[in-house]
Amino acid sequence: MTPIPNLNIVPFVSVDHMMKLVVKIGIETVLTDLAAYIEEDIKRWESFDKTPRIAAHSVDGVIELMPASDGSLYAFKYVNGHPKNTREGRQTVTAFGLLADVGTGYPTLLSEMTILTALRTAATSAVVAKYLAPKGADCMAVIGNGAQSEFQAIAFKALLGVKKLRLYDVDHAATEKCMRNLAGLGFDLVPCTTIEDAVQGAAIVTTATADKQNATILTDNMVGAGIHINAIGGDCPGKTELHRDILLRSDIFVEYTPQTRIEGEIQQLPKNHRVTELWQVMTGQAEGRKSARQITLFDSVGFAIEDFSALRYVRDQLQRTRLYQELDLLADPDDPRDLFGMIQRSTANLAVA
Amino acid sequence: MTPIPNLNIVPFVSVDHMMKLVVKIGIETVLTDLAAYIEEDIKRWESFDKTPRIAAHSVDGVIELMPASDGSLYAFKYVNGHPKNTREGRQTVTAFGLLADVGTGYPTLLSEMTILTALRTAATSAVVAKYLAPKGADCMAVIGNGAQSEFQAIAFKALLGVKKLRLYDVDHAATEKCMRNLAGLGFDLVPCTTIEDAVQGAAIVTTATADKQNATILTDNMVGAGIHINAIGGDCPGKTELHRDILLRSDIFVEYTPQTRIEGEIQQLPKNHRVTELWQVMTGQAEGRKSARQITLFDSVGFAIEDFSALRYVRDQLQRTRLYQELDLLADPDDPRDLFGMIQRSTANLAVA
Repeated sequence: MTPIPNLNIVPFVSVDHMMKLVVKIGIETVLTDLAAYIEEDIKRWESFDKTPRIAAHSVDGVIELMPASDGSLYAFKYVNGHPKNTREGRQTVTAFGLLADVGTGYPTLLSEMTILTALRTAATSAVVAKYLAPKGADCMAVIGNGAQSEFQAIAFKALLGVKKLRLYDVDHAATEKCMRNLAGLGFDLVPCTTIEDAVQGAAIVTTATADKQNATILTDNMVGAGIHINAIGGDCPGKTELHRDILLRSDIFVEYTPQTRIEGEIQQLPKNHRVTELWQVMTGQAEGRKSARQITLFDSVGFAIEDFSALRYVRDQLQRTRLYQELDLLADPDDPRDLFGMIQRSTANLAVA
Repeated sequence: MTPIPNLNIVPFVSVDHMMKLVVKIGIETVLTDLAAYIEEDIKRWESFDKTPRIAAHSVDGVIELMPASDGSLYAFKYVNGHPKNTREGRQTVTAFGLLADVGTGYPTLLSEMTILTALRTAATSAVVAKYLAPKGADCMAVIGNGAQSEFQAIAFKALLGVKKLRLYDVDHAATEKCMRNLAGLGFDLVPCTTIEDAVQGAAIVTTATADKQNATILTDNMVGAGIHINAIGGDCPGKTELHRDILLRSDIFVEYTPQTRIEGEIQQLPKNHRVTELWQVMTGQAEGRKSARQITLFDSVGFAIEDFSALRYVRDQLQRTRLYQELDLLADPDDPRDLFGMIQRSTANLAVA
């Protein structure tokens, strides 16, 4: 007999537990396994309920809810984006998420997702690059050396064997931090003082900057034939990183078109500009890279299904790692209709508490 | 100097803490204060970002996200509705919610909301009845004696002085449970064996049933002139409680028209049928009850602003009651750009853990 579960309890993975999980399993393994979960879910794209994220915009940033369901599991993520936060010692992006059982509506996992989002974003970039980057690419420029940069670097090393990194940030201290963190992990690290320098010889260019504005991190003349651009930053209306001319020379790949039209680099283009969705490439319904001179662009904005995959991955590690705590999140009266009686009877507990 | 807060910590109110909070403050006081918060927020209706809830429907039920923001505070609730759950010992409705600071996007409170939703639903019904029920109403019929019934009863007693209750449920055991729970709380309780019997002499009729179907709890002949109908159940597409003819004889009041047209009793009516929003009545822009023979109907479906108010109320009790725990929900590296370094450094902690 299956033991009767404590219906009031939901496992909760704190920031501390998530860090321990990454360290215990090993970050390269986590990124590789996460990428496999993401690829598996993107391949069954058509079985998901999809909706563009629900955003509450304000002067300083945005708060978003990102739900997704495959009819059996339901997931959503709460995530904010506030570029000014770093000036006050806070994260630009923080997040947490939930997994629930569609059949009962009961939550089955609550998890921090600030770290998990960093992991899944990098894992997604790398799994996409498996389909789009030039064969044998081993050198990547990383423009923007903030919180996302090391995760990208390690994911590309783990999944594609990229070992040579050319690092650039407007703030050299960020580059130094990135160099420090990646030292001893098997990379050939080259700090660069200009973007022009950083992209020299790079088969992959990753842009991961965070200003909430239309910026031009890359201009057309910096982008040579045959490269793959992994455009991570730029994930809300009015925030882009690439010059429009680059977009016009590239074949553009997106997660979910209705959302990327609003948030991605392609907000600079007409609504009918041709883009290809990743699931079409991964299922073989559309071509990825076709030629050695083609410029491929992954216009990444982050989609709810990637969070769904990430939460599913974390859930599958709980039993083995025991890295969670039990949260008393759900009311569970003996008689479901007797919620009031449960409160009344708690008086006895209060008296002795 | 203000102490530097622990940026990783979010206060969490568990089910146990919520029960203790209700017992400590007293349920009548909680409902009265909650009603005041809700009334205050509904009166400043136009300052809120509003959206119909985002629903994921399945065969067995629905999972919904309900966000609301006044530009300073942001709130959302996760809530499910699965009528079959009670057959398996689970709640039809469970919920939890979050309050966040719009300026930083940082969560400031995570709380159970199964109990809190029951409280805010009852508080909303009672505050609405202050505007719509006939003056001096002291007798209420309660059709459906499930999890919501006692909360409704106590809210109507606390806010309107309703002391005489005529209880009916298809399952007499539910009525007995309700009688037991309300015994000794100052009510005059009358169990009834038919709905016709229950509505006899009642100035207010509360319907709170939970089947996911078009039901007809009340038919036209049961509804006399001058009463106020507080229709609580029926909160998703295809689920209603009242015969259409009753709607046609009533003046109908709703929370947020775009959502109620989809979910409320008025899904039975043409899209242009006249309804009045509560905020218009509470701000004096529209009339509530106009005559002694008028039938008023509150077509309640529950709106995100009520949850916003409820979370705001709970937040305001934290300091005084200390009924919360600290949740390690947000990553807080010393350098916001150094999320990866924070994980790396946690290795040391793991070794000694």
